[in-house]
Amino acid sequence: MSFELVCTECGAHHDASRYRIGCDTCGGLLNVEYDAPASVDGRTVAGATGFARYLPMLPVQDVANLVTMGEGDTPLISLPGAGVAIGVKHLYGKLEMCNPTGSFKDRGNAVQVSVLKETGVTRAADIAGGNAGHSFAAYCARAGIKFVGFSYRGGYTLDGPDNRKVQAIVQTGAEMHWVEGDRQACQEAMSRFCEDTGTLNMVYGRNAYFIEGNKTMAYEIASQMDPLPDHIIVPVGNGSTFQGLWLGFKEMLEDGRVQRMPRLHGVQSEAFQPLVHAFNRGDRKASTGAADTVAIGIKIAEPPRLQALVNASRDSGGQPVAVTDTAIIAWQRRLSELEGIFVEPTSATVLAAAETLKQRGVIDEADRVLVSLTGSGFKEPIPESAGM
Amino acid sequence: MSFELVCTECGAHHDASRYRIGCDTCGGLLNVEYDAPASVDGRTVAGATGFARYLPMLPVQDVANLVTMGEGDTPLISLPGAGVAIGVKHLYGKLEMCNPTGSFKDRGNAVQVSVLKETGVTRAADIAGGNAGHSFAAYCARAGIKFVGFSYRGGYTLDGPDNRKVQAIVQTGAEMHWVEGDRQACQEAMSRFCEDTGTLNMVYGRNAYFIEGNKTMAYEIASQMDPLPDHIIVPVGNGSTFQGLWLGFKEMLEDGRVQRMPRLHGVQSEAFQPLVHAFNRGDRKASTGAADTVAIGIKIAEPPRLQALVNASRDSGGQPVAVTDTAIIAWQRRLSELEGIFVEPTSATVLAAAETLKQRGVIDEADRVLVSLTGSGFKEPIPESAGM
Repeated sequence: MSFELVCTECGAHHDASRYRIGCDTCGGLLNVEYDAPASVDGRTVAGATGFARYLPMLPVQDVANLVTMGEGDTPLISLPGAGVAIGVKHLYGKLEMCNPTGSFKDRGNAVQVSVLKETGVTRAADIAGGNAGHSFAAYCARAGIKFVGFSYRGGYTLDGPDNRKVQAIVQTGAEMHWVEGDRQACQEAMSRFCEDTGTLNMVYGRNAYFIEGNKTMAYEIASQMDPLPDHIIVPVGNGSTFQGLWLGFKEMLEDGRVQRMPRLHGVQSEAFQPLVHAFNRGDRKASTGAADTVAIGIKIAEPPRLQALVNASRDSGGQPVAVTDTAIIAWQRRLSELEGIFVEPTSATVLAAAETLKQRGVIDEADRVLVSLTGSGFKEPIPESAGM
Repeated sequence: MSFELVCTECGAHHDASRYRIGCDTCGGLLNVEYDAPASVDGRTVAGATGFARYLPMLPVQDVANLVTMGEGDTPLISLPGAGVAIGVKHLYGKLEMCNPTGSFKDRGNAVQVSVLKETGVTRAADIAGGNAGHSFAAYCARAGIKFVGFSYRGGYTLDGPDNRKVQAIVQTGAEMHWVEGDRQACQEAMSRFCEDTGTLNMVYGRNAYFIEGNKTMAYEIASQMDPLPDHIIVPVGNGSTFQGLWLGFKEMLEDGRVQRMPRLHGVQSEAFQPLVHAFNRGDRKASTGAADTVAIGIKIAEPPRLQALVNASRDSGGQPVAVTDTAIIAWQRRLSELEGIFVEPTSATVLAAAETLKQRGVIDEADRVLVSLTGSGFKEPIPESAGM
């Protein structure tokens, strides 16, 4: 299917034969727009497996350019023990840590890197060190694209809590640059490097292709759960999985495949809650004063698509929620004890949020609740509960 | 389907309503024998998903007792870059690290723990610390079965290379016992504990149920690859995945679902190669003098079912092979560089073995070769290549 890139700010249309991250006219963020919505039957490719079957709804023209590692098709299982603890009868988990690199990021990167390949990009740079960075480095390696990673003191380092993610990036043969200074200095160094060498600056979290890949999760949920969940809870940093879910359900509503949109609840930490703050029109502080959070995957103070996250929350009837580190650490442990599932702290936020939303009456005991368990517990040390 | 347990030594038959690990008559190891082979159509349950569809060929009577976490149905993908490096045109990987706890062990434990539940076991003990231990602890947690883990100095510890696996076991709420002394002392302490408390002593690696769970991989490969692979390469410690593959293909040969058995090649490290040694009737030393190995998942000097492993190798036309730590570490890195796939050293052995078997002429350039990538790279530190 053919598609264009449309600016979210000025509405300018751009052709997609070149890899674009921002609008040439005004610098705004872009969305993918397809020329005609695929028919219900045309949404998936019959007989194809994995991401290849989603090709009609993805911004990739030729299946030969699909860079895939078997991502998606993750288990969706019941969580009866955690459900009892929270007080909901129908609690389910989508095991996104079963993706090939151990996190949901593979959905976005499978599409993002396929588009890089299709548009002829051979070198790409980004700030790297977490789940997204490792996943991107891995897909680039598989595609034969050179990945140049940038990190900085206070960011992702080989001896920090993310050390195994950084080690995994180094293992892909990525060219790593360790920058003295803060995140700003790191981004400036990366910009200079990209200009000097003709390397594409990915500016992770801005780009529309990553979100398109995350639509696939909505399609899978619709095929795995009948009736659909009433609530879906996901961690929100840049919010790509949140937006992907909303987009996917919106597409399925439009073509009649589903009759309603689940309520999409984004979770953040007390220390970094820009979505909660924006959603509540400033009647809560962006930070409660907590200096930091164990949920390092969602330590994002300024998500580039914040307004879109607010809109998707309102459109779906969701309520963004912030949770404490104490609750996150407790739920990381309880999920292991009650269900045998070992996730990283960022992923444990969704159980803490389910508990909070139940207490607030947003979730009813009889509702069907799905949480996305976004990343494996093995990638980070288990944080200590003392001192929280 | 009904089934019995049959002794591999004296042939005695035992009823399966009680959980048994060894033969009451002679102490020998047991195999599961089904009363009548399922028909071709009866092998899987139509409409069921996950392990529930395999119920007719598993030693679990009631689907309500199935303890499942969405294990199995792992991706099977091409590895073109590694194939070029090795000199084979058709190289594929089965991504077993995409199982819920990050390793293939979930297949065996889903069945093993289901049988524990079905036979009314409420407490089970085992030596614990690696992939198998974490997987077992996780499934026990999900089933509400108390797991008691034993470890010892020199074994799995919280500060050893397996520390994250041990931490993950602790997170499940397992009761851990840290024993002073060697493995023998640890096993004795565990035996005393089990006798004193009426806890089931699992004696990991001896029990037939674990192997039955691993049959599912053969069924999946048959559904994912057409034509079947000519060669399948798997790491061999206790050899449960190896035996499971052989059993699964044997069942499918008997019911006509497949026409031939792939050649099954077991891989070991130079330091621990009992299968290679036994297969070659003693014309190679069990150890070449290497003191240790980075492939800690297959550091097994005396697999309990060694003769069965030799027989399965011969029956399938396989050739067990030992690989060096240097090759293991190099292939852990190369698999990341060429394919973006990050596995633990134990899993990287299969690529080193593919290379060796190609060089020896066992594998031909035009053959279809499948390697099992058994465990995630995030569970252990990456070993240093220096000093190898």
